[in-house]
Amino acid sequence: MHFTSERRLDDGVLERELTLSGIPGILWTPASASASAPVPLILLGLQPLGLRRMYPRLVARARRATADGFAAATIELPGSGDRPRWDVLERARADLRRALDAGEPVSDEIIEALTLPLVDKAVPEAQGALDALLSLPEIGGPVGYSGGVISIGVRLAVVEPRIVAAGLFAGSFVPRAIFEDARQVTIPLHVLLQWDDERNDRQSALDLFDAFGSKEKTLQANMGGHTGVPQFAGEDAAAFFTRHLSRPRSPLDDGARLPGGDS
Amino acid sequence: MHFTSERRLDDGVLERELTLSGIPGILWTPASASASAPVPLILLGLQPLGLRRMYPRLVARARRATADGFAAATIELPGSGDRPRWDVLERARADLRRALDAGEPVSDEIIEALTLPLVDKAVPEAQGALDALLSLPEIGGPVGYSGGVISIGVRLAVVEPRIVAAGLFAGSFVPRAIFEDARQVTIPLHVLLQWDDERNDRQSALDLFDAFGSKEKTLQANMGGHTGVPQFAGEDAAAFFTRHLSRPRSPLDDGARLPGGDS
Repeated sequence: MHFTSERRLDDGVLERELTLSGIPGILWTPASASASAPVPLILLGLQPLGLRRMYPRLVARARRATADGFAAATIELPGSGDRPRWDVLERARADLRRALDAGEPVSDEIIEALTLPLVDKAVPEAQGALDALLSLPEIGGPVGYSGGVISIGVRLAVVEPRIVAAGLFAGSFVPRAIFEDARQVTIPLHVLLQWDDERNDRQSALDLFDAFGSKEKTLQANMGGHTGVPQFAGEDAAAFFTRHLSRPRSPLDDGARLPGGDS
Repeated sequence: MHFTSERRLDDGVLERELTLSGIPGILWTPASASASAPVPLILLGLQPLGLRRMYPRLVARARRATADGFAAATIELPGSGDRPRWDVLERARADLRRALDAGEPVSDEIIEALTLPLVDKAVPEAQGALDALLSLPEIGGPVGYSGGVISIGVRLAVVEPRIVAAGLFAGSFVPRAIFEDARQVTIPLHVLLQWDDERNDRQSALDLFDAFGSKEKTLQANMGGHTGVPQFAGEDAAAFFTRHLSRPRSPLDDGARLPGGDS
């Protein structure tokens, strides 16, 4: 990983663009972060829309995370933004558009083709990003995961022991295989659902919430469409991360988690 | 209304027991409340369990409300606690117990008998309590309604214009007639649902949430049974009332007042 640019935002937050094996990303750290006071990290998930187009929303979330004493980081998804187009994904997206334009139901095959290759590629990339980010002296742990394509968040919550809490957005198609993953998730979850999301099936989102194996999971449903998440929902999600990332961790916590990985 | 006893709790909160046309109740006011600085009011709904048995939970909610700068008050439900037994309700409760003991589904008739007479009597009593409480110089407005039998909260939200926000607990049977009321509710709502509530049908709770006419409504579902509402759910509900009852509101308020401020 190397940094390609850096600037200070007006609230003292350090924003650094980076590349990691050719993948572009951004890291935000609060002014307080240092080698002697390393901060927890929130990995911000992306949508296929891409880093540049999502930047205004991302920087708002990053400012909130840094105000709460956390670093925030994100990397571009495979086949999105400035990364090379990916035929598998392009075909799946074309099939999705055709189905939607024709007013047909979106088949399980389309949902799988749209999601599973993306999950299989994005999850190890996110883990590689954690390796690099957690090696920085000013970033410690634990790690939270927030937003983005929900199937990627679910898989990460299962396979990545450094992630101790996840805030997910029930806003995209979820293939059956990911429901199986969901049953294996045990970390605390905060799941946002837009009640009238035109791009998301409400019952499927409720079923996914039900499937999660976590003992602590919260569903927060608000009114409005896909992009209408109210500001106070961000406040409640921030409180969730504050509860789970900023308390002093006791040996008891570590005993409850998988060995290895923590920086 | 007259006060029958008063004491100061250790945090300076004034707790006064009261009777209002023979109905027992309690009023809690923060130390700051005065005629020159009247405070908003949260009316705490009760369960048929009664005031005395609910006191430990009530005083916890009242302490949170007063810490946020609000008065809190509650009055005993008809046929509950120390109030005279009410045959209509006693018969309905006996029918409910019989159905539950026999493992039979609870019929619409039982749900109606259990709920509608209670709503019809409790709602005007709550409105009378508001008349009396709001005539006190140290209590201004607006009024929030919190918890208790959800059907009472729904009806109050429709008929009582002084109530500007309601936090409801989807934890009891709701007759069809109340679904009709729900469509007429327009005030902001914060609805708590215990995902595995043994006394409550989840789908019915989701249907009721869907039925509310409010443009701003939030459903927060947490894991656990009827009495297992997690502490952070109380924090998020408190943030809801702070957003809607604290006046005057400035844009800073939304950003600055965070639930769960444990760092």
